[in-house]
Amino acid sequence: MTAATIPYTPPLKEIRFVLDHLAGMAEVAALPGFEDASPDMVDSILDEAAKIAGNVLAPLNRIGDIQGARLGADGVARTAEGWGATWQALVEGGWNGLPFDPARGGMGLPNLLNTAVQEMWHSANMAFALCPMLTQGAVNAVQLYGSEALKDLYLPKMISGEWTGTMNITEPQAGSDLAATRSRAVPDGDHHLVTGQKIFITYGDHDLTENIVHLVLARLPDAPPGVKGISLFVVPKVLVNPDGSLGARNQVKCVSLEHKLGIHGSPTAVLSFGDEGGATGFLVGEPNRGLEYMFTMMNHARLAVAMQGLSIAERAYQQALAYARDRVQGKPAGWSEGLSKGIVNHPDVRRLLMGMKAKTEAMRGLLYSAAAAVDIAHRHPDGETRARAALLVDLLTPIAKGWCTETGQALASDGVQVHGGMGFVEETGAAQHLRDARITTIYEGTTAIQANDLVNRKILRDGGGTATTLLDEIAALGRELAGHGDEPLRVTGAALADAAEQAKAAVAWLVVAAREDVRLPAAASVPLLELMGLVAGGWQLARAARLAAERLAAGDADAAFLSAKPLTARFFATHVLPRAAALRETVVSGSASVMALSEEQLFGGA
Amino acid sequence: MTAATIPYTPPLKEIRFVLDHLAGMAEVAALPGFEDASPDMVDSILDEAAKIAGNVLAPLNRIGDIQGARLGADGVARTAEGWGATWQALVEGGWNGLPFDPARGGMGLPNLLNTAVQEMWHSANMAFALCPMLTQGAVNAVQLYGSEALKDLYLPKMISGEWTGTMNITEPQAGSDLAATRSRAVPDGDHHLVTGQKIFITYGDHDLTENIVHLVLARLPDAPPGVKGISLFVVPKVLVNPDGSLGARNQVKCVSLEHKLGIHGSPTAVLSFGDEGGATGFLVGEPNRGLEYMFTMMNHARLAVAMQGLSIAERAYQQALAYARDRVQGKPAGWSEGLSKGIVNHPDVRRLLMGMKAKTEAMRGLLYSAAAAVDIAHRHPDGETRARAALLVDLLTPIAKGWCTETGQALASDGVQVHGGMGFVEETGAAQHLRDARITTIYEGTTAIQANDLVNRKILRDGGGTATTLLDEIAALGRELAGHGDEPLRVTGAALADAAEQAKAAVAWLVVAAREDVRLPAAASVPLLELMGLVAGGWQLARAARLAAERLAAGDADAAFLSAKPLTARFFATHVLPRAAALRETVVSGSASVMALSEEQLFGGA
Repeated sequence: MTAATIPYTPPLKEIRFVLDHLAGMAEVAALPGFEDASPDMVDSILDEAAKIAGNVLAPLNRIGDIQGARLGADGVARTAEGWGATWQALVEGGWNGLPFDPARGGMGLPNLLNTAVQEMWHSANMAFALCPMLTQGAVNAVQLYGSEALKDLYLPKMISGEWTGTMNITEPQAGSDLAATRSRAVPDGDHHLVTGQKIFITYGDHDLTENIVHLVLARLPDAPPGVKGISLFVVPKVLVNPDGSLGARNQVKCVSLEHKLGIHGSPTAVLSFGDEGGATGFLVGEPNRGLEYMFTMMNHARLAVAMQGLSIAERAYQQALAYARDRVQGKPAGWSEGLSKGIVNHPDVRRLLMGMKAKTEAMRGLLYSAAAAVDIAHRHPDGETRARAALLVDLLTPIAKGWCTETGQALASDGVQVHGGMGFVEETGAAQHLRDARITTIYEGTTAIQANDLVNRKILRDGGGTATTLLDEIAALGRELAGHGDEPLRVTGAALADAAEQAKAAVAWLVVAAREDVRLPAAASVPLLELMGLVAGGWQLARAARLAAERLAAGDADAAFLSAKPLTARFFATHVLPRAAALRETVVSGSASVMALSEEQLFGGA
Repeated sequence: MTAATIPYTPPLKEIRFVLDHLAGMAEVAALPGFEDASPDMVDSILDEAAKIAGNVLAPLNRIGDIQGARLGADGVARTAEGWGATWQALVEGGWNGLPFDPARGGMGLPNLLNTAVQEMWHSANMAFALCPMLTQGAVNAVQLYGSEALKDLYLPKMISGEWTGTMNITEPQAGSDLAATRSRAVPDGDHHLVTGQKIFITYGDHDLTENIVHLVLARLPDAPPGVKGISLFVVPKVLVNPDGSLGARNQVKCVSLEHKLGIHGSPTAVLSFGDEGGATGFLVGEPNRGLEYMFTMMNHARLAVAMQGLSIAERAYQQALAYARDRVQGKPAGWSEGLSKGIVNHPDVRRLLMGMKAKTEAMRGLLYSAAAAVDIAHRHPDGETRARAALLVDLLTPIAKGWCTETGQALASDGVQVHGGMGFVEETGAAQHLRDARITTIYEGTTAIQANDLVNRKILRDGGGTATTLLDEIAALGRELAGHGDEPLRVTGAALADAAEQAKAAVAWLVVAAREDVRLPAAASVPLLELMGLVAGGWQLARAARLAAERLAAGDADAAFLSAKPLTARFFATHVLPRAAALRETVVSGSASVMALSEEQLFGGA
């Protein structure tokens, strides 16, 4: 098999359904500043993005996996065949500027629409799509916190994509613990001299563009210790003259590229700054507020990585489904005339496929809804509405990042399983999705980091108020559907209401118990995140199911598509939501069983 | 990092505890035919096997991953550096003959002891250990069903390891569905001429030995269609003269080797038989009974692959634990003097490690207990005891294969997660375990195939009798412990009793409901297998916990080791067993939600 035989077909119908009906594209497009987001514009963006994803990015996916990114003898990272030309095509199409200010060359379109485009690009080629994703995050940070001079000099070319952006956070001793950051920045006239080593820098070097704008965390000489003494700097790979033209090479050296399990096409660099005295860097915003600024970028990146979970799941599903339809192995149990004999009709294979489909749709509903809330939080004229949307985004971000990436990874593995032995053979392509997906629960904060954020900042800080309000709303929807006339909606509603109550009970217990047990938040956080993820996913499927039932009742002719929604929700209700009670039990078992053994006892067996 | 920095330390203390106390090594050694299994012999076998595993096989693991197996221009597969010499050392040590008849050169030691050796070898180097594993399976098949002439000619060198053995089952169109087997065998004097293509043949070609004995499924000219028309043949790579010396090359051609996600060191061959008229093959046993014979080999292989789940989990655990102890990231929540600051003491990391430890110990208890039952089923003087043990082995084989491989895979992924970003970098070695583990839920029958075997042959066939008897015993143990004075045992007992009752309820429901719904067994089988796996694993941890408590109460001085057992069981009770209720809910939701969508609706989104 060759790459050409594994097509990706953007699921435009699903995307439109969620975009229009669950996320409220029309309401978002009506927000101030989105005057250009006409229905025609939205249509044409989606159609064009789908073409690029399916015809241009997807065929490069396996090429990137096989060739990988390599460090040339000249110290410049080389991307795989065809990647450079494709990047140029995206620049020429203005795609990188989709959600940005038209005054600086952007298209001024909603984050929600950008999210749909990102879904398709990550499905088509996750290793490639990381580059625009990080560049958009860097634009956000400079736009929000950079001086006018910095913005004038850098933003137009970052928005156009002529230059790309990176996040330079991790150091060998400072991964999840940014307090251990050692990179330094010393004032030197109108700029700073930056020194230090950063690792795991995605697209930290490459040959796609003539410049790369690194956003780098470093300490000023008089900075307080810990995370309150970290500042943010723009450190370009090539210095920029006042007129915007390129000057001398800055002291940013790509020391090596990692040899990784997946996303081979994406260069992951070790960067050394200032080997000959100091790289020229420019302070972004105020001193010592770098972490706060970086979190702007990071929160964007967390939702974008959550999207990778959905994207890889969609891609893995399409591939598994195509295989299962073609592959014949005996006659499926209960087979009857009119059904294909493909393994797609074997109930045990169908169970895997239904799980992939249901969870993928749950993720899409969740991520598009969160993306709409981002737009509302930024743009809505009413301050209270903005604040409410911002709280929802804050709560949903760690849930989405943790749950969608863990789920995407599991579904990529299910995709391999559907293929049987062929799934283990690299040429099939299913294994690449699993390898690529494996990074998503790690970068931009591991699942445990998301869970700690969820528990400590988003739940304990307000006594569980925001979470409980959302769970009440979900439980109410569940109870409403539990009384519905259609059996699939009834089953869905009952399971959802129960799961939401389990989550509420877990939150309520945790808020009290955490006062007495300092280890509890970290011990219980991942099971609680999973519980919140199940409920949030079930919520979106239930919303879709209700909406589909309403449209069917109102005479919508697309019966095949719409009638699938309640059935898909019911599968989630019978096969996924029952875990909610188990997760609550685990949460309320506390920290004792987690921490009971001594270190010696952990090593006991050898 | 190099391979030498990732040691494997065989967990001899754990192995001895399970071997002696949960599996009953002394009782097994007392069985007729195991006269050589003296305590001294058992000690020295374990010690020597541990040295070979840690010092010889483990250092070759990464070399095999990097170099892989390659097909030479001469059509012979080449193994990685050092593999050939290591195989010769095992042959000289007589290791391949450990469980076989001394009259043919074996050591005459119990399958149980062989199982402990296999654990260590698979932990050290799964890709390598596949070769002795399959050779032992081939020996079993020839020994049980071959003619005396075949046994005399082939067994001594297969038992010594001078020749290796393979299973040739799968064809491109016949994977899980062996009824589709097309390979043919035509009588030709005292032998048959075999033609056909077989795929996914593990160690189907290699340079470790001068001959390879292929066991091949093929159809005789007059064979009935389907699985009742398949016969088993010995087809040597090189023909064997009547005096045992090697003759001409047989018509067995290695067409290609697969490029796989993992176990790179193990050559997975496409073999073509009889390209120039027919490969010389010798019928094993009676015509048309090949599938039945192959299942002897397959059942051995299924328990051996289940062992790979345990082995890879143990290896991943050791590696993750070592990393977590060294790696410092901030101060762990609730840290106090005397604890290291390693991430091992962060509750969210500890939760992952505890899960790895608890599930690994659960798997070891289950697999060693099953291995002891295999010995009893073969050797016990009392026919009823033999029959009871055989029923237990039949029931536990699909549960062990399905649950231990799914669990091993999940734990290998947890091992990556503990490493954070370093886990995604291949040099760390954690990712290799995940890649290697991914095949275990596929080969020797996918998890769905195991689950179908469990439901259809092991549960429905006897109305759930055997399963219910075992679950009753487990529930009784749970109830006994639920009244214990120590809290960890109480928690363990209560959770186990509940989980066993959930499983009983699911089995009872299924036995009735399957009469009306032909799709139900396949739709509900994997959730039921997972449920049975949880209960079986919890059972073993509860047995270990009770035993440890008894020994502590009796004054055993090894308090650190023994007191860990009830605490480990409690973690499983709070973090794993609660899922039992959810799995029962899923089972009893039936097949409707699994099968509800049309094929068109599955493709609905694109």
